[in-house]
Amino acid sequence: MLGHLLRPEIEEIIRSGDLRSLRFALEDLSPAELADALEDLPPERSAIIFRVLPRPTAAAVFEFLPHWAQEEILRALGDVETAQILNAMSPDDRTRLLEELPAEATKRLLEMLSTDQLQIAQRLLGYPEDSVGRRMTPNYVAVQQHWNVGQVLAYARKHASHSETLGVLYVIDPAGKLVDDVRIADVLMAEDSRPVDSLLDHTFVSLKATDDQEAAVAAFLRSDRREALPVTDSENVLVGIVTSDDIMDVAEEEATEDIHKMGGSEALDEPYLQIAFRRMVKKRAGWLVILFLGEMLTATAMAHFEEEIAKAVVLALFVPLIISSGGNSGSQAATLVIRAMAIGEVRIADWWRVMRREIASGLALGTILGSIGFLRVTVWSAFSSIYGPHWFFIALTVGVSLIGVVLWGTLSGSMLPFVLRRLGFDPATSSAPFVATLVDVTGLVIYFSIAAFILQGKLL
Amino acid sequence: MLGHLLRPEIEEIIRSGDLRSLRFALEDLSPAELADALEDLPPERSAIIFRVLPRPTAAAVFEFLPHWAQEEILRALGDVETAQILNAMSPDDRTRLLEELPAEATKRLLEMLSTDQLQIAQRLLGYPEDSVGRRMTPNYVAVQQHWNVGQVLAYARKHASHSETLGVLYVIDPAGKLVDDVRIADVLMAEDSRPVDSLLDHTFVSLKATDDQEAAVAAFLRSDRREALPVTDSENVLVGIVTSDDIMDVAEEEATEDIHKMGGSEALDEPYLQIAFRRMVKKRAGWLVILFLGEMLTATAMAHFEEEIAKAVVLALFVPLIISSGGNSGSQAATLVIRAMAIGEVRIADWWRVMRREIASGLALGTILGSIGFLRVTVWSAFSSIYGPHWFFIALTVGVSLIGVVLWGTLSGSMLPFVLRRLGFDPATSSAPFVATLVDVTGLVIYFSIAAFILQGKLL
Repeated sequence: MLGHLLRPEIEEIIRSGDLRSLRFALEDLSPAELADALEDLPPERSAIIFRVLPRPTAAAVFEFLPHWAQEEILRALGDVETAQILNAMSPDDRTRLLEELPAEATKRLLEMLSTDQLQIAQRLLGYPEDSVGRRMTPNYVAVQQHWNVGQVLAYARKHASHSETLGVLYVIDPAGKLVDDVRIADVLMAEDSRPVDSLLDHTFVSLKATDDQEAAVAAFLRSDRREALPVTDSENVLVGIVTSDDIMDVAEEEATEDIHKMGGSEALDEPYLQIAFRRMVKKRAGWLVILFLGEMLTATAMAHFEEEIAKAVVLALFVPLIISSGGNSGSQAATLVIRAMAIGEVRIADWWRVMRREIASGLALGTILGSIGFLRVTVWSAFSSIYGPHWFFIALTVGVSLIGVVLWGTLSGSMLPFVLRRLGFDPATSSAPFVATLVDVTGLVIYFSIAAFILQGKLL
Repeated sequence: MLGHLLRPEIEEIIRSGDLRSLRFALEDLSPAELADALEDLPPERSAIIFRVLPRPTAAAVFEFLPHWAQEEILRALGDVETAQILNAMSPDDRTRLLEELPAEATKRLLEMLSTDQLQIAQRLLGYPEDSVGRRMTPNYVAVQQHWNVGQVLAYARKHASHSETLGVLYVIDPAGKLVDDVRIADVLMAEDSRPVDSLLDHTFVSLKATDDQEAAVAAFLRSDRREALPVTDSENVLVGIVTSDDIMDVAEEEATEDIHKMGGSEALDEPYLQIAFRRMVKKRAGWLVILFLGEMLTATAMAHFEEEIAKAVVLALFVPLIISSGGNSGSQAATLVIRAMAIGEVRIADWWRVMRREIASGLALGTILGSIGFLRVTVWSAFSSIYGPHWFFIALTVGVSLIGVVLWGTLSGSMLPFVLRRLGFDPATSSAPFVATLVDVTGLVIYFSIAAFILQGKLL
C-alpha cells in the first residue's frame, strides 16, 4: 500500500540521477514495501534501484517480487548483479524463480551460482514439479539428540543467521534421522544442563520431500507448528524445512487453479493482468471449444424433436428455462463437492453418502422450482390465452420436467467429480460450464420425452 | 491419517471400560492425531476420552476439532469438564468456538470462565465479526524498547510458557505502543549487554484489530514473519497477535466461501457432510430460485419471437447452443476476474484495462466459436437438406450471433464483478450461473435480432 504512495517520489529521485538521495529514500522501507514500489516501475528503473541497494537487501526485495517482475529485472541487470542476487536469495524462493523460467534461462542462471549454492539449487530442482522438495529450504537449525540445553542454545546462537526461522529447532540422531522438533520456547525455559532429549514429546508432523505440495497445506493445518514443517527423505533423514509463507502461497495457488478450472478455463498460472494476451486466449479457448462441441449435441437433439416443436411451438418457449435450471443446479452441486474434496472434507469413499444427500437435495430443489414453473404457466394462463386450451398440461409438463432435470443436474454434478478423481483426473475439471453442457443435452431429452408422454393426443 | 487407522483399537478399549489401557494407548498420539481419531466417534465416547486426558492435552486436542464436533462434545461433557477445557483453551480458538454458538450457549459458557479468561474472551468477542480482533490471541511476549538483550532474554524465558509463539518478540515503548518486532534469532546472536533498540530495523508489518480478517492474509504474504503478525488498536498500542495457522484458516475459508458463491449458492459455512439437510437446501434454494425467476425472462423473450419460430422452426434448434456459448464465456470471464480481485491482482481502478482485454478476448473467442458454428451448418448442409435452401444465411446467422453473444457474455461477465464491488457487494456473488442467466436472456434477443436482419425476406 505504502509502496504505491511512494512511487512518484522515488521516480523523481531516479530521474534526477541523485544516487545518494535514492539510497537515503530507500533506507526506511521494508523489503516488502520496496518490492511493492518496484513492481510497477519499468524494469530499467528497478534495475537502477537494485544497483544502489545493499546486497542482502537487494536479494530480500527481489524475493518479494512476483516471477514476471523478477524475470524482467534480471533481463535488465548485468551478469555481476544477477549473480550477486541469485547467490544471496533464499534457496526456496530461488527454486520458484528457476522453475518458472525456460530451460535455457535456468541453465544460464545456474552457471552464475557459487559451487555451494549450485549444489543446493540442483538438489532442490531435482525433486518433481509441485512436490514438497521444490518448496524446501536447507536453512534450518538441527541439533543432536544427545546434547544438553546449553549446547543446543550455543549451537542455535551460532547458526541463527543461516536459519530461515528459529521458533522451532529440529532434533536429529547421529545418522541425521529426524527424532522430533522442539519449540525454542521450551529450550529457553529449561536449565542449561538438562538433556534436550528430555524436552521432547515425540509427536511431530513431518513431510516427505516427494509428497505433493498440497499435502503440506493439509499437514500445516493439522500441526501446531506455526513457522515451518520439517521435510525428510524416504529414509526419514531430515533434508529441509518448508516455511509457512510458502505453504500459504501453495494454498492460494491451488485455490486459484481450482477456481479457474471450475469457471471453465485452463488455470492461467499467471496474474490476469500480466499474462500475454495470446497465451490467455489459448488457455480460455480450449475449454470453450470443447464445451461448444459438446453443446452442438443440443442442436442435434433439438433437430430430433423438430416435428414436435413445429406442432407445438409453445414447447420451444420453455427450452432455455428448463435446461438452464438443470445447468444451474448441476454447477451448484459440482462446486460444493469439488471444494469439499479439495479441502479434504469429502473422500472418494464418501460417494454413496454424497449421492444419497444429492438425490434428496435434487428432489427438494426440483420440487421448489417445478412448483414455481407450474404456477407461472397457470397464472399466466388465467390472464391470457398465450398457452392455449391445453395450458394445464403444458404447466404439468413444465413442472414435472423441472423436477426431473434438476434432480438429474444435481446428481450428475455431484457424481462427476468422483468419477473424474477415480479416473485419475483433477475433479476441479468438472467445471460449472462442463456440467451445465452435459445437463443441457440430457435435459432436452428429458423435457421432450415428458412432453411427448403428457401432451400425447392433445398438442402432439 | 493415522487417527483413522487407530480408531477401531481405541473404540475397543473404550468399550472394555479399561481406563488405564486407554490412558496408555493415548499417550503416544499428538493432539492433532487424537483429534483426527475422535472426530468421527460418537460424542459420548469422545467425552469418555476427554475425561481421561490430562487437562492441558484435553484442551489442545479440543482445539484441533472442527466446530461441529466441539459443540457435540461440550453437550456430552459435564459442567466441570467443560469449564476446565474452556479455561485452558487458547483465547483465539475459544473465540472461534464461542462465535459459532447460539447466543444462549455462548452466554452459558462464558459464565464458566475464570475472571481473567472471561475478561479476555469478552474483549475478543467485542471486536466485529470477521475482524482481525476476533482471530487474535493475547499470548505473546512483548519487551521494552530500553531493555538490553540480557533483560529481554530473561523476560522471554520467564514468559515463554504463556506465549503462542516465540520466533518473534514484540518491542513496545512505555505507553505500550508497538515500536518494532525482532526475531528471537537476532536476539540470541547478540551480546547480553547490547540494547535491544540497536537490533531493530524499524520496518514491520502490523494489523489493526478492526481490519477485516482478509487483510491479515494479504499482510502475511507481504511480510517476512512466518509465525504471527502483531495487532494494534487505533492508537498503535499492541493488543495481540494473529498466528499464521489462523491466517491460513481464514484464507481457506474465504476461498471456500468465494467458490460456493461462484457456484451459485450461498456459502454453506459448514462442512458439506456435516451441515443439516434443511439448512443446506435453504442455502442452495435461495439462489436457484432467484436464477429461475431471472431465467423466466427467457420464456418471455422466446414468446416475443414465437412468430419467427413458427415461421422458421430451424431457428429454435440453435437456441441452446447459442445461449450456452454466451453463458460459458461469461462465467469464464467472471471467474477469472473475481479470483484476480480476491487475491489483489486486480483493483477496481483497473476496470478499464480489464474491459479492453475482455473486448479483445471476446472478439477472439467469439470468432473461434462463430467459425466453428458457421462451418457446422455449412458442412451439415452439404450432406443433407436439414437446413433447407437458405442454409447459407442460417449459417451466417449462427456465426454472427455467436460472435455477438460471446463478446457480450465475456464483457458482462468481466464487468459485473466491478459493478458489484462498486456497489459494495461481494464480487463473488456474480456467480457463473448468475452471469449465465443474464447472458441467456440478452443472448436470445441478440440471436433473434440478427436472425431477423439476415433472414428477412428469406425465411422470415
